[in-house]
Amino acid sequence: MTPHPGLAAVAGLIGTWRGEGVGQYPTIDSFSYTEEVTFTDAGKPFLHYLQRTWSPAGAPMHTETGYLRVVEGTRVEFVLAQPTGQTELAEGSLVSSADGFTCLLASRIVNSASAKQVDATRRRLELAGDILTTHFAMAAVGVPLTHHLASVMHRD
Amino acid sequence: MTPHPGLAAVAGLIGTWRGEGVGQYPTIDSFSYTEEVTFTDAGKPFLHYLQRTWSPAGAPMHTETGYLRVVEGTRVEFVLAQPTGQTELAEGSLVSSADGFTCLLASRIVNSASAKQVDATRRRLELAGDILTTHFAMAAVGVPLTHHLASVMHRD
Repeated sequence: MTPHPGLAAVAGLIGTWRGEGVGQYPTIDSFSYTEEVTFTDAGKPFLHYLQRTWSPAGAPMHTETGYLRVVEGTRVEFVLAQPTGQTELAEGSLVSSADGFTCLLASRIVNSASAKQVDATRRRLELAGDILTTHFAMAAVGVPLTHHLASVMHRD
Repeated sequence: MTPHPGLAAVAGLIGTWRGEGVGQYPTIDSFSYTEEVTFTDAGKPFLHYLQRTWSPAGAPMHTETGYLRVVEGTRVEFVLAQPTGQTELAEGSLVSSADGFTCLLASRIVNSASAKQVDATRRRLELAGDILTTHFAMAAVGVPLTHHLASVMHRD
């Protein structure tokens, strides 16, 4: 199946990625994790996204899911649902490179009634050939926007 | 794997559901569709949700994904991502019955910059034994809150 032409700038994401990450935040101890991300093409102008992480001992940690949309090859709209009770609409610029792209996304968050309060997030996704790098910053539980997660994954 | 105790009221959802639906809206012709919904347990206090629909001819139509959370057995938080560019946080009451439950959910929507504008949605999910019934109303593209979709599915 050929991806939708509007996805050309991010078609390199299609597939499964695995790697390692490190988390930190002022309110918790730092930690490391294994991450798996899958971007799936459905022949439509978006990619389905599913992410899962595990502790070094193999226990399931986080998961998130949603859709990646591309607008005119230069903007990304990353529409996300969090099992922790947030919706996250992360939007921003897409800059293509010789073997991938970088995108910088700022989010609008909605918190469910029972969720821990998340006020804002920033995401950076960088694809360079067979390496996918992610950065995630978060303003939450009274802490201003602060770096939280970074991971480096390789094509599975 | 035993579902998280907090999910007892909705544990009957776990599995795959298939059935038929009908759509209508003041701005479009009415249509029918086939729907498949899967609720997956991950041993955590939420269920993963993936929905897909097809036209009578078998062409992929809509899809959506996210997580269903239950609060104290009496409230549902349905955290959703839409490939059409919306996040949808649908929350409301959960009323258990002899063989299932009914939940009535009202949503807070965030629209991406390029999306068609959706202002609000209402969802009704009713589980009765092996029958899952869904209703979906939407205020969008200038139309006030109006019934849009109804489906009846059976456990696959």
